[in-house]
Amino acid sequence: MEVNKTILTFGEILLRFSAPNHQKLTQIKTFDVHIGGAEANVAVSLALLNNKVKYLSRLPNNDIGDLIIKELKSYQVNTDLIIRGGDRTGTYYLEKGASVRSSKVVYDRKHSAFSEITSAMFDWGQIFENVHWLHVTGITPALSYSCQKVYIEMLKIAKSMDVTISFDINYRRSLWSIKEARKIIDTTLKYTDVLFMNRGVAEEVFGIKTSTENVDAIDVFSEITKKLTSFCNPKHIAYTNRDVESASNNNWQGVLFENNKGVCSKNYTIDIIDRIGAGDAFAAGIIHGLINQYDNQKTIDFATAASALKHTIIGDFNLVNKDEIMELMYNSAPGYVKR
Amino acid sequence: MEVNKTILTFGEILLRFSAPNHQKLTQIKTFDVHIGGAEANVAVSLALLNNKVKYLSRLPNNDIGDLIIKELKSYQVNTDLIIRGGDRTGTYYLEKGASVRSSKVVYDRKHSAFSEITSAMFDWGQIFENVHWLHVTGITPALSYSCQKVYIEMLKIAKSMDVTISFDINYRRSLWSIKEARKIIDTTLKYTDVLFMNRGVAEEVFGIKTSTENVDAIDVFSEITKKLTSFCNPKHIAYTNRDVESASNNNWQGVLFENNKGVCSKNYTIDIIDRIGAGDAFAAGIIHGLINQYDNQKTIDFATAASALKHTIIGDFNLVNKDEIMELMYNSAPGYVKR
Amino acid sequence: MEVNKTILTFGEILLRFSAPNHQKLTQIKTFDVHIGGAEANVAVSLALLNNKVKYLSRLPNNDIGDLIIKELKSYQVNTDLIIRGGDRTGTYYLEKGASVRSSKVVYDRKHSAFSEITSAMFDWGQIFENVHWLHVTGITPALSYSCQKVYIEMLKIAKSMDVTISFDINYRRSLWSIKEARKIIDTTLKYTDVLFMNRGVAEEVFGIKTSTENVDAIDVFSEITKKLTSFCNPKHIAYTNRDVESASNNNWQGVLFENNKGVCSKNYTIDIIDRIGAGDAFAAGIIHGLINQYDNQKTIDFATAASALKHTIIGDFNLVNKDEIMELMYNSAPGYVKR
Amino acid sequence: MEVNKTILTFGEILLRFSAPNHQKLTQIKTFDVHIGGAEANVAVSLALLNNKVKYLSRLPNNDIGDLIIKELKSYQVNTDLIIRGGDRTGTYYLEKGASVRSSKVVYDRKHSAFSEITSAMFDWGQIFENVHWLHVTGITPALSYSCQKVYIEMLKIAKSMDVTISFDINYRRSLWSIKEARKIIDTTLKYTDVLFMNRGVAEEVFGIKTSTENVDAIDVFSEITKKLTSFCNPKHIAYTNRDVESASNNNWQGVLFENNKGVCSKNYTIDIIDRIGAGDAFAAGIIHGLINQYDNQKTIDFATAASALKHTIIGDFNLVNKDEIMELMYNSAPGYVKR
Amino acid sequence: MEVNKTILTFGEILLRFSAPNHQKLTQIKTFDVHIGGAEANVAVSLALLNNKVKYLSRLPNNDIGDLIIKELKSYQVNTDLIIRGGDRTGTYYLEKGASVRSSKVVYDRKHSAFSEITSAMFDWGQIFENVHWLHVTGITPALSYSCQKVYIEMLKIAKSMDVTISFDINYRRSLWSIKEARKIIDTTLKYTDVLFMNRGVAEEVFGIKTSTENVDAIDVFSEITKKLTSFCNPKHIAYTNRDVESASNNNWQGVLFENNKGVCSKNYTIDIIDRIGAGDAFAAGIIHGLINQYDNQKTIDFATAASALKHTIIGDFNLVNKDEIMELMYNSAPGYVKR
Amino acid sequence: MEVNKTILTFGEILLRFSAPNHQKLTQIKTFDVHIGGAEANVAVSLALLNNKVKYLSRLPNNDIGDLIIKELKSYQVNTDLIIRGGDRTGTYYLEKGASVRSSKVVYDRKHSAFSEITSAMFDWGQIFENVHWLHVTGITPALSYSCQKVYIEMLKIAKSMDVTISFDINYRRSLWSIKEARKIIDTTLKYTDVLFMNRGVAEEVFGIKTSTENVDAIDVFSEITKKLTSFCNPKHIAYTNRDVESASNNNWQGVLFENNKGVCSKNYTIDIIDRIGAGDAFAAGIIHGLINQYDNQKTIDFATAASALKHTIIGDFNLVNKDEIMELMYNSAPGYVKR
Repeated sequence: MEVNKTILTFGEILLRFSAPNHQKLTQIKTFDVHIGGAEANVAVSLALLNNKVKYLSRLPNNDIGDLIIKELKSYQVNTDLIIRGGDRTGTYYLEKGASVRSSKVVYDRKHSAFSEITSAMFDWGQIFENVHWLHVTGITPALSYSCQKVYIEMLKIAKSMDVTISFDINYRRSLWSIKEARKIIDTTLKYTDVLFMNRGVAEEVFGIKTSTENVDAIDVFSEITKKLTSFCNPKHIAYTNRDVESASNNNWQGVLFENNKGVCSKNYTIDIIDRIGAGDAFAAGIIHGLINQYDNQKTIDFATAASALKHTIIGDFNLVNKDEIMELMYNSAPGYVKR
Repeated sequence: MEVNKTILTFGEILLRFSAPNHQKLTQIKTFDVHIGGAEANVAVSLALLNNKVKYLSRLPNNDIGDLIIKELKSYQVNTDLIIRGGDRTGTYYLEKGASVRSSKVVYDRKHSAFSEITSAMFDWGQIFENVHWLHVTGITPALSYSCQKVYIEMLKIAKSMDVTISFDINYRRSLWSIKEARKIIDTTLKYTDVLFMNRGVAEEVFGIKTSTENVDAIDVFSEITKKLTSFCNPKHIAYTNRDVESASNNNWQGVLFENNKGVCSKNYTIDIIDRIGAGDAFAAGIIHGLINQYDNQKTIDFATAASALKHTIIGDFNLVNKDEIMELMYNSAPGYVKR
Repeated sequence: MEVNKTILTFGEILLRFSAPNHQKLTQIKTFDVHIGGAEANVAVSLALLNNKVKYLSRLPNNDIGDLIIKELKSYQVNTDLIIRGGDRTGTYYLEKGASVRSSKVVYDRKHSAFSEITSAMFDWGQIFENVHWLHVTGITPALSYSCQKVYIEMLKIAKSMDVTISFDINYRRSLWSIKEARKIIDTTLKYTDVLFMNRGVAEEVFGIKTSTENVDAIDVFSEITKKLTSFCNPKHIAYTNRDVESASNNNWQGVLFENNKGVCSKNYTIDIIDRIGAGDAFAAGIIHGLINQYDNQKTIDFATAASALKHTIIGDFNLVNKDEIMELMYNSAPGYVKR
Repeated sequence: MEVNKTILTFGEILLRFSAPNHQKLTQIKTFDVHIGGAEANVAVSLALLNNKVKYLSRLPNNDIGDLIIKELKSYQVNTDLIIRGGDRTGTYYLEKGASVRSSKVVYDRKHSAFSEITSAMFDWGQIFENVHWLHVTGITPALSYSCQKVYIEMLKIAKSMDVTISFDINYRRSLWSIKEARKIIDTTLKYTDVLFMNRGVAEEVFGIKTSTENVDAIDVFSEITKKLTSFCNPKHIAYTNRDVESASNNNWQGVLFENNKGVCSKNYTIDIIDRIGAGDAFAAGIIHGLINQYDNQKTIDFATAASALKHTIIGDFNLVNKDEIMELMYNSAPGYVKR
Repeated sequence: MEVNKTILTFGEILLRFSAPNHQKLTQIKTFDVHIGGAEANVAVSLALLNNKVKYLSRLPNNDIGDLIIKELKSYQVNTDLIIRGGDRTGTYYLEKGASVRSSKVVYDRKHSAFSEITSAMFDWGQIFENVHWLHVTGITPALSYSCQKVYIEMLKIAKSMDVTISFDINYRRSLWSIKEARKIIDTTLKYTDVLFMNRGVAEEVFGIKTSTENVDAIDVFSEITKKLTSFCNPKHIAYTNRDVESASNNNWQGVLFENNKGVCSKNYTIDIIDRIGAGDAFAAGIIHGLINQYDNQKTIDFATAASALKHTIIGDFNLVNKDEIMELMYNSAPGYVKR
Repeated sequence: MEVNKTILTFGEILLRFSAPNHQKLTQIKTFDVHIGGAEANVAVSLALLNNKVKYLSRLPNNDIGDLIIKELKSYQVNTDLIIRGGDRTGTYYLEKGASVRSSKVVYDRKHSAFSEITSAMFDWGQIFENVHWLHVTGITPALSYSCQKVYIEMLKIAKSMDVTISFDINYRRSLWSIKEARKIIDTTLKYTDVLFMNRGVAEEVFGIKTSTENVDAIDVFSEITKKLTSFCNPKHIAYTNRDVESASNNNWQGVLFENNKGVCSKNYTIDIIDRIGAGDAFAAGIIHGLINQYDNQKTIDFATAASALKHTIIGDFNLVNKDEIMELMYNSAPGYVKR
């Protein structure tokens, strides 16, 4: 039986301009428009899985802000907390690669309404009303110094109110240095109940290298987990394991650790339609499993199936429902036409 | 040399609304529109192979009916027999899957003009004028009780006029139960000269399970054929053998039996553009081969190549001509650019 | 350090009408429009690699001519030499295949402005001003007798001015017979410093068959090179080696010989977006390497990576820059999202 | 100051398939998809004007039902009351005319989930919780006998609970005869507080002809009002007055009567983008004015400006906000670019 | 009651590439594709009015030829006489103007399959089987000398077989000079039973100037008719009278003379969607009226309403049926939504 | 005969995201992309009129910067001076109105690369090489304080080098106050040889009200000119006179003064496709006329015709050539189809 807890996610949401049909950015005459952001993606996934979700962000008081809020509402995400103000909505341009050609993101998110938040804008009492779970990512503190301050303040308040905190490290080299990041990440880890990361982050942020010859996923991530838990202590650590064949084809697997004991999902081979947001779909799947008291094996299977499906959905949001995820978890031949 | 016989196909034709670019149905703002229906698909294929084809159906007397007839005419299918009347054209919504995500069909075909046909609407003498071959499928009797009555009446008249009858079982769980279906299917088999089916139908409708360890296609289908011919006696039985890797990639092979002797085509590995109608393209290929007195090997090779190509054509109709099919049959490297 | 030489390419440029979304030509209601031609494709590639390039052609004095020149200018190709006049721009219709279905080109290029060029239209002194390299292909002399005359005249003048000449045989069966072609090709080879070709051309034009059992690329092309250099003597011969799995998937490799010594690139497995112009992208890569004094290994690696990337770009032009090519050359996992 | 009352609208919502770019229905290969229905249109308008709105309807439990609910949610319409079940969503095909060519609607709404509602499906207590206003139209009782029964039952309950009832006669010849309609309409009028209609309805339904020579709008509608109020007694009667120049150009004016005293808006000359839903936009404007205690002149000015703007919005919903309406009401030159 | 005569039209059919959304030709990345040609347009109109129509032309034996024939078939035009062969299908590029900007056509029709017809290709006996009416235009003899020869031969044969001949002068300055044209036109007039022209042609071809101060259409065209019938003697002369306000707005009227007695239609003010083919729609309307024995007033009203509607239809063909034309003829307010 | 002078324009260029098909910004799923900016628009117009033009701006060193430069190059604008650097390209969102609905622009241009220019980035010697004319607008100094400094410095250098300076006041309320603006504008006027403005600017910036009852354009603008020349002394003052009927229909006229003597163009009634950039097209027309020594009447006629045509061109640039402008100037019926 599913428990109905209110989840809060907090972060920036961006307008995405995608070059249609695998065109290069310099070829386009039109852009496909989607909206997304790590924490908003998690919010939408959780709402589509029938969890109660509030999303906290800041958006300008203009039509672009309205456009975004309208779409979040359509997915039943509670947008009442969103602060209106500031000059601009962050955006990014996406050139979708194919085969031997990588995808490329050109960010235009500086000076966004969100990056200019200050503590005075937030009424924490109202914000945390009925909230049992808070999800944040490492992108927020990387955006600006004022974001860092609000972010740390929020973590402290959440912890003081016994809210469960999940944290996706999501390290972005283009936003801050390892040195800056490490300080904030290490602080965050003290508050973290559920941690999301992958091998790249382990190596880049924490200097934890793992032998690539060791092919068993559990073993690889056991090693990482041991090293991580030597200096922090989240209850759960969930890893995604992406193996890139080409921009069109990846392998995708998930691993979940609790008390140094790991379980792993099957390994999906995926023809990619749109991989942006897959990590967020995975995080949402784990949170959903934990909140709804799935056992760890079911949780990792659910989260990995959900995020495997994300790769086939256009846009940042993972627009699948529980039935579709369950079907992939339990059905060996997912390619039939359902009539 | 090809003999010019008139073929009649009879059934419902639907408007199909496809979500563009692998979008989910809940994401769309436009639909791509195609038309199709099992028996109409067979008619179009046969017309494009230069056979004389009449298509019998019922469509409302409005612009949507006109749209469909206009397209059938463009493929040189004779539409003079189509009855105009009734309230609505059946439709269906198609969400095209990809990779780990299945395709999904949402039918809206109840109460269609065709489902409300009655015997009084049909002038069998006029309909069967010059007809040597009749093709029907198990979808028609599944639509309504009045459809069943017309369908059975038609089979009897066809048989009495020495018309060759081909029958594609096409069992659709969502339209009727096995029990209902079995009664009509068994009756139809008495009239059937050429039967189309596959392993799924063998198991679901007739309870004929085949070992999945037995990898030789001929052996598998021999076993099915033996069991089938214990209670019915079509001259030819043609099987399609689809092996689903994912929604994007399938293997596809055909097998044809006559007098318990089977021949099989090569096995195609296919990147899928649109698989709706592949079975109908196969049926049309078999009918074309038999009418034009190809030997069984050439017939199965032709039908399988034709239906392999269908997977690369957008829409329900298999818009390839004989040259393109022959090229695939005889050319080991189909991927060159023909200049 | 890169030397800045002016390169001249000379040939016909066509408007291409592509059926969108893998449609058959008989299904279309709109065409995607691109422009391209073997020598113009080479010019655009070289300009995007920051070489100085002039393109010589003839186009009608109407909006379609303007459209083409406008696009060439946008890629920084010098179009000052283009002669305006004649009735029409050559065009072609492209039906893009998929999987088991081949792509198909329907040419409509007869009577084009370019095919009606005469020597009197050309002021060779002005044309070759500052030119150090001339690139031509076997398509030009195949277009008309008057094209042949201008083409041969041009080669002679170029040679007399010590211009380096590169030649892509590009034999097109539909334009002329082997017999006609051989005469012109053999003449051209006398002037050729850098030759582009492949196994198909070796067999079809020169009757040089190579064992398909011999799987080592260097060995296969060594054999061809030996036979070729028995009757001609280019300084470099560059081969592309395409292995067609299906219309959607090819393997692609390049080999470069100098003094009978060959080097070869890695072999790319490619999911194809648009393969038209890949050979031209390869030629441009080789010319760029030679002009910029890359060693032969780097040259073949660069040219093959450039042309592998071309398969993922829509349109005939290879819209990648040097950084993107280098990244593929040196990066083992090209499928990541660059943020 | 605006009072925050909950408004309930009740009726059928349809999927609309529009032929793009003024194409005829028989020309199309894609449809633009919108959703709409008289009462849903009113609901969306009122929600966008920041009123609290619940919408009551019935939709099948499939992706098409989900699509519609998702869009209603995005406009902040409360959809919690919507009943899920039944076979199909009603649809209609729209061919947009231009100039001398009329627009054409082809309905396919029979047997819809809504048309098959029964009283047992409705929990009136829950439905009318906090409801102060109910809006209905003459389309609902025209759909089926069971719709009539639910509709009459609902009116009685609403009246018994002192809910204000607004009624748009919206007579549709294709759905029922004048005789059938008159019976239900006359019954409805007994419960009606605010009535919406126009000259066409006056003449067709009530046989009230007005001299076309009489050019003053107030005089014309005074005459109608006098005749109407001889047999019924709504507090307000609001009329739209459309003068059709061509399918591309109309004049549009509104008139509002209370106690036989009329006020009228200015007369707008409009180049039409999409006129479907203009009457509903007008009704919403009147309801908004009355609920928010505008005086009658401001109410009719507001409703007419809102519905004039609707003619420029694609789709059935009137996606304008209060500022945009006010600007048109008070700004004599609406065509400037707002920067 | 309508008589069922077979009408033959003869001429060239072109592929039209239209710049979408009022773009300039130099802006486009896609073209909308339509097919059309003066005589084919007449054929399609007549077929849609349920007349029996054969269309005679020549098209290459490739996919583009197939595309065109497929579309003609969809409109029930008999295409059995179309000769396959030659190199190319004529094309033209259309830049649609707006308001103060004129539309522009760039022809690319030289060397088309049709322009290279020779008498030896035609089996006149077969062609004229059951033909009672032949429609030709002045475009055909303007295309090439060989076209002229076939055209004159055809006229003679038609006349010898008592076929009614209608002739639309359609003078195109860009194709031939007045001097050349006059010779052929004068010859044609000897065979012409029904003549189509306008004021521009009267002045440009025959030097008949009419006072622009004389505003009565009948008077103006009476004067032209008198001068024309001094040297030729068609039974009917039908004129279109276009008054160009701007590229977006025209007035349009028709006048029909028989025995120097003229009748004229109402004058339509039209917002233009696509005016290409309006003259052909008018000619088809006149032919339809004469064949079906409408009186002259009904004939000119029908033809003018039909061609007024053409201005609102995208593409060269006039896709309206008799009901739609009749509605405009008899309905004073054409802009209502037909539900 | 036209003199070939080099013109320099200087300012910001923006990416424009337009909602397609008159959609509201909150409805979109795709944006049409164009580029534009007041001074870039003037540059493109002048280049298309075969003047030599350099454009000076600053753009980030990423794909979006490349996209813009590529398009400018395609119009033969010299882009060698463009400085690469900074974070972002300014953008704006355009909602195109219709009829009673105004168009709306949502700017997102703060913090653009251009707004952060500093004097140190500019090498004035190189920039003004061969420059005879400089065009600036009041937008540049409104963007930032550092822009103001560069702008004033540039004007001084230009004047010191005897460069002719044209200035379009282009006052934008949303960017700065009248008070701030007046200071800079008054300074600029000291350097201005050719001034562009309109009645709105006269009233808003200079407080010069003109009687709206005075209908003669020359008289109205004489009055303004007299008041203006009391405190500044440009050689030419050119006014546009827009009369807004609705968002779809405007009247448009130009007036040019020299020595207090005015000439005015005809008054165009225009159905609007896209009016953004019309003022810039007008400025370019005036500059072209003055540089090419047209007399004042021809200059104002040319500029007004050019800018009238702009209203029919999609995007900010006025993509018409001299022939098209001349045709409108001298042709009373601009709506014919040019074949």
